Amino acid sequence: MTRPAHILAPGATIGILGGGQLGRMLALAAARIGLRCHIYSPDTDSCAFDVVQKATQAGYEDEEHLARFAQAVDVITYEFENVPHHTAEFLATRCAVVPDPTVLATTQDRLAEKTFVNRLGIPTAPFAAVGSEAEIVSGLDAVGRPAILKTQRLGYDGKGQRTIGPESDALAAWADLGHTPCILEGFVPFEREVSILAARSRNGQVVCFDVTENEHRNHILKTSRAPAAVSDAVTAEARRIAGTIAEAFGYVGVLAVELFIVRDGTSHSVLVNEIAPRVHNSGHWTIDGCTVSQFEQHVRAVAGWPLGEPVRHSDVEMINLIGAEIEETARWLAVPGACVHHYGKAEARPGRKMGHVTRLLGPASTDKAG
Amino acid sequence: MTRPAHILAPGATIGILGGGQLGRMLALAAARIGLRCHIYSPDTDSCAFDVVQKATQAGYEDEEHLARFAQAVDVITYEFENVPHHTAEFLATRCAVVPDPTVLATTQDRLAEKTFVNRLGIPTAPFAAVGSEAEIVSGLDAVGRPAILKTQRLGYDGKGQRTIGPESDALAAWADLGHTPCILEGFVPFEREVSILAARSRNGQVVCFDVTENEHRNHILKTSRAPAAVSDAVTAEARRIAGTIAEAFGYVGVLAVELFIVRDGTSHSVLVNEIAPRVHNSGHWTIDGCTVSQFEQHVRAVAGWPLGEPVRHSDVEMINLIGAEIEETARWLAVPGACVHHYGKAEARPGRKMGHVTRLLGPASTDKAG
Repeated sequence: MTRPAHILAPGATIGILGGGQLGRMLALAAARIGLRCHIYSPDTDSCAFDVVQKATQAGYEDEEHLARFAQAVDVITYEFENVPHHTAEFLATRCAVVPDPTVLATTQDRLAEKTFVNRLGIPTAPFAAVGSEAEIVSGLDAVGRPAILKTQRLGYDGKGQRTIGPESDALAAWADLGHTPCILEGFVPFEREVSILAARSRNGQVVCFDVTENEHRNHILKTSRAPAAVSDAVTAEARRIAGTIAEAFGYVGVLAVELFIVRDGTSHSVLVNEIAPRVHNSGHWTIDGCTVSQFEQHVRAVAGWPLGEPVRHSDVEMINLIGAEIEETARWLAVPGACVHHYGKAEARPGRKMGHVTRLLGPASTDKAG
Repeated sequence: MTRPAHILAPGATIGILGGGQLGRMLALAAARIGLRCHIYSPDTDSCAFDVVQKATQAGYEDEEHLARFAQAVDVITYEFENVPHHTAEFLATRCAVVPDPTVLATTQDRLAEKTFVNRLGIPTAPFAAVGSEAEIVSGLDAVGRPAILKTQRLGYDGKGQRTIGPESDALAAWADLGHTPCILEGFVPFEREVSILAARSRNGQVVCFDVTENEHRNHILKTSRAPAAVSDAVTAEARRIAGTIAEAFGYVGVLAVELFIVRDGTSHSVLVNEIAPRVHNSGHWTIDGCTVSQFEQHVRAVAGWPLGEPVRHSDVEMINLIGAEIEETARWLAVPGACVHHYGKAEARPGRKMGHVTRLLGPASTDKAG
């Protein structure tokens, strides 16, 4: 049984599962509008701990600490979609958990997620479940080569995936992934990768941020630009898709939908790549580019407050500082129009998101291409 | 002996004396760029405590706690200019204190401050020191009526001041202020009240924010607008004044100079009203209107980091939410283009600054009037 959420009063406390930069930026956004956060994270060096008075460092299986956490906060949310499902369920019997833990069950599993999206009539890349060597063979027949073999669960930033090229040994790739249940995805010849961030309030209001264009490097987001150079029709379709998904989940909070834009004769089709049931790296530009950020919007939704109408005042570009790139901070601090964000992580491991820079490129345009 | 300040590494800790909304917003700005804050405040319900991991609730005379605080942080600054001078001096023997405590000695005393400004060749309202009834009489002869009688020390938001009108009993007004040392200020027939916020780095670089136009209500700032409707000549003079003062103090950090703009035939003259050796309410719009806020700029200066070149992307209006006006928050949350700030203070006492709203009015203009 999940507890219903209440409308929070200023000064109330939001519990956040996860202690990374998303939790940190959520807590900073909450503070701006008079709400407190309590961070729960297993990691001793969680960078979100630094910006709150109350933090719990304990495991996701530690029911004693979880119960105490649930008692100390007014509502619970996540910054991290791989919170164990039973952790969320355990908490939900003691405190309101938003969005509902059932969402995690779907989005933690690539197969369940894609099936869910297709059932809503929204296209994805072709895919096939892989649980045996025979299914790899039949899957490749179905989706063609090149394809991408991904673990069904717990993948992010390119972790747990292997590209299957024309000559690749698909069976070896699966062995390399430990023979865990996987999904084989057909390659989508996309023109652009974009994402849309949508917020849904408890009473069903949906507000989207402008479509964002994303570039990845080594499977990790490197830059985002808003607005994306896409047509009005693509924008409308992206918004429709985000709204449909949010509605189908009965979602409360901010959710990100990563999309492939594929040229289709003279027009474009829009395919769902992935859903993130949380604030998302491709929305970091909203902190500096909009009157209401994705983080504040999520906090408002979770608190039962009205969503904002985020006015984007500038065209923007967001650049991730990954690993040792964090040392470029000093240079960025001196660039006019650059907004520097440093997550305060102690160790700059390769591939680790350490900070980001948002550059304002000029007054907000509504010009679109594509 | 004061300790020299070092260049802070990311993750270092800035100690902040004072726990109000300015400390809160400083800590939020520091977190954004990867620095920690430790708040020191005598008030148990300091709203800045909520946004930091480390806080000390202890008196400004409590040398044991002060010494421990100095040891726990890498540099110390203020959010509050009425920190007792000997508190700052005590800390300065143990840790770098920025800006230098000698600045407080000047700005805590209206007589010393105005004398300092005049010695720099910068005009103020005419003034006279009042330490006796005879000096009230001679002071009024010198500055004329109407005049304003202000306590020399510890006044803010109109506290500790009395207007002396054409018929007022000036001696009674002084009695009303407890016969404390006062200053009698001549009335300045100003056309506008503006302020300028300047940051000075440790190596002497000075960067100003755009001149802001201010309106007060009951002696408390109610709205600020940027840019101010002033001529290029007034803007240049305001910048010159701020730079001269910052330079003369050997100042490090953000300082606010409140100015009177007086019509003078076909041009205008610029008089200094007051100096605040800290971030300032009239600069709150910079959080939402500029790429680098006054808070971040102060943090950068204190950390020994390069100052930013704050690009103002929008024309803005800042509205203070004072006392019970904080209840308007719910309404403001729904206004497109409004950025809502709630300081998380528990008690909405009359005259207390509880939050503010920044409205973006449109793309940044450089149009000026006046």
